[in-house]
Amino acid sequence: MPVNLTAPVASSLHPVAGVRIGVAEAGVRKANRKDLTVFLLDEGASVGGVFTSNRFCAAPVQICRERLDAGAAVRAIVVNTGNANAGTGEDGLARARQTCEALAAQLGLQPDQVLPFSTGVIMEPLPVDRIVAGLPAAITDAQPAHWARAAEGIMTTDTVPKAASAKAMVGGVEVTITGISKGAGMIRPNMATMLGFLATDAKVDQAVMKQLAFELAEGSFNRVTIDGDTSTNDSFIVIATNKAANAPVTALDSADGQALKEALMGVARQLAQAIVRDGEGATKFITVQVEGGKTAAECRQVAYAIAHSPLVKTAFFASDPNLGRILAAVGYAGIDDLDQTRIDLYLDDVHVAVNGGRNPSYREEDGQRVMKQAEITVRVNLGRGSASDTVWTCDLSHDYVSINADYRS
Amino acid sequence: MPVNLTAPVASSLHPVAGVRIGVAEAGVRKANRKDLTVFLLDEGASVGGVFTSNRFCAAPVQICRERLDAGAAVRAIVVNTGNANAGTGEDGLARARQTCEALAAQLGLQPDQVLPFSTGVIMEPLPVDRIVAGLPAAITDAQPAHWARAAEGIMTTDTVPKAASAKAMVGGVEVTITGISKGAGMIRPNMATMLGFLATDAKVDQAVMKQLAFELAEGSFNRVTIDGDTSTNDSFIVIATNKAANAPVTALDSADGQALKEALMGVARQLAQAIVRDGEGATKFITVQVEGGKTAAECRQVAYAIAHSPLVKTAFFASDPNLGRILAAVGYAGIDDLDQTRIDLYLDDVHVAVNGGRNPSYREEDGQRVMKQAEITVRVNLGRGSASDTVWTCDLSHDYVSINADYRS
Repeated sequence: MPVNLTAPVASSLHPVAGVRIGVAEAGVRKANRKDLTVFLLDEGASVGGVFTSNRFCAAPVQICRERLDAGAAVRAIVVNTGNANAGTGEDGLARARQTCEALAAQLGLQPDQVLPFSTGVIMEPLPVDRIVAGLPAAITDAQPAHWARAAEGIMTTDTVPKAASAKAMVGGVEVTITGISKGAGMIRPNMATMLGFLATDAKVDQAVMKQLAFELAEGSFNRVTIDGDTSTNDSFIVIATNKAANAPVTALDSADGQALKEALMGVARQLAQAIVRDGEGATKFITVQVEGGKTAAECRQVAYAIAHSPLVKTAFFASDPNLGRILAAVGYAGIDDLDQTRIDLYLDDVHVAVNGGRNPSYREEDGQRVMKQAEITVRVNLGRGSASDTVWTCDLSHDYVSINADYRS
Repeated sequence: MPVNLTAPVASSLHPVAGVRIGVAEAGVRKANRKDLTVFLLDEGASVGGVFTSNRFCAAPVQICRERLDAGAAVRAIVVNTGNANAGTGEDGLARARQTCEALAAQLGLQPDQVLPFSTGVIMEPLPVDRIVAGLPAAITDAQPAHWARAAEGIMTTDTVPKAASAKAMVGGVEVTITGISKGAGMIRPNMATMLGFLATDAKVDQAVMKQLAFELAEGSFNRVTIDGDTSTNDSFIVIATNKAANAPVTALDSADGQALKEALMGVARQLAQAIVRDGEGATKFITVQVEGGKTAAECRQVAYAIAHSPLVKTAFFASDPNLGRILAAVGYAGIDDLDQTRIDLYLDDVHVAVNGGRNPSYREEDGQRVMKQAEITVRVNLGRGSASDTVWTCDLSHDYVSINADYRS
């Protein structure tokens, strides 16, 4: 059961001027399943992306990177589920290109104006014929109001579609932001990938889009972890359709740039956190906040050590305030000159460890009370500086093992 | 159920001249349990040790490091289970010292000739009175033939005692090697630590002992992983009693040094692998062998990425030849210039992936056959050099979650 996460209400997702979305059933892997989604962008959109750091990256990721780096004027995005087109070599690249060519031909575009995304089983050939055959239906279906449909269309083994939407003021003008994401742990049996698509009608210079996507990912999708596995297909795309009346954002550190980024970040975080809330077997949503570090990077390092520790994660599952496991994870996070006698640890408002030892006033029942909650904040103070960082994760339950140990069906 | 691991037969463990071992029931945490073990060494033993890299290291670890670094003439080792004396600050150091002082007084030694070891619950005060009260019985019990008893005496939640023994020729003289270990995953509920004690009667110069312990750990205890968690108390001690008639080993790269190291390594590996075989919830013993790297370090990095991946580990539990998960782990291991088109993957003798893609001649039933075995070798060739390294691990099962999610009892 996802942790405090329900399907989005379609009417709560604001359409973004300049974006139409269509979904179809192409039978990529299974019949009668929405498995093909297209985003059609009006001319003039600015687009940025961030992709998996996995060296074994999928064919569509390679093509997206190449096209965005070359400054392609993106007009369409095509997403299939059921097949990740990863570990498929040259043939996989050719098939991803074929998909783009087919969509481009039907829309009167150049192939490099189409970005492809795939998610599903690894190391099997992409059934490009079935995908191409499904494109006309997806194009016909395209509507600005279809965000909730798209959130469903990109699901693989997610149990809940994930979408979020907001309005914000940028330079005195109201802009709209809507996005969707998918992912539920890194991989259910053979099903990979976290995908995120975020669009705004704000005017944003193409020149800042790559950096914008990077900074947004750093504060959202790059701060969530289920099991520490990094998929071959992870992608996050940010679109600014330039339809709103704001003065174009040309620098992220301008007042307008900051206002826009903050608003986008709010939605990106909801989308990223939704993935954790729907994490494989998750029963708890955990915020790991590390402060008092010399650098944000070392805080992150400690936060990930805690968030990845199977022992910490099983303790959360068991609602066991097992302080030793958290402190041990802090200790092995890799900060060579860490002084254990300066570490403080809190579970929500409960101060459990002080100067690296048990807080004399800590009572087990207080820790127990917090550990029983569905949402918990672990706060660690390293006592060596003023930097901080935060990571979101979930617990490790029996269901995680069941889900991932099921034989591929 | 441990994987191909049974309790040692006491008579198969050769006594090591110059070492007597005694075990007692001190009631550290629970009554009627062998929880206190002493090793008594004749005068003139050479001793080296390697300890946890966890910055949150336990009080006894700090004291052992200090004494070995100061060149103490070690004559006794005291090990308690039931309490790790970790996260206990200055008070914990004082209690560990008290234990050593009490044992030293009873044996007519200086306190710094005693090395203390503790394993068990974290962040609770060491019950030093009960330990001290148990020492006379442990001393009275001391016999050269008590290795199997000691293997039991240092167990916490291990399901099987772990010991190994061998004879070898060093410089034309037969020497004896016997050792014990404990650990079963990093931590069962609150129970931490891997401990290893290895003794030989060979003559070895004290000057090479630290390096010897380091090199042995690098080839054994530092190459096993259950869940990637590093305990606060991990310790590995090597003792050479200097009772044998061999010419003293004064350099590890001499012929005698190499012969001795190889023999010690064989026993150390058995002890380290026994910990994986008895890993929490383990149903499979996995050897991850990475070759074709530029350096051994990068091979190790890839091997650990595979060995720590919850997705890979659950696939082993399910006997699912899920190649994508292994290749994905290779891809995110952190080698920035890795070329995915050069990766080959084998499961035992089955060549599953070639040049980063599925081997055309690979049949799922062959992978399936290997995955069903209790012992499996995963071999990855990175195709970029001639270095290699190996790591041993186990699968991730329902029982791992059950064991670690049980509330501390």
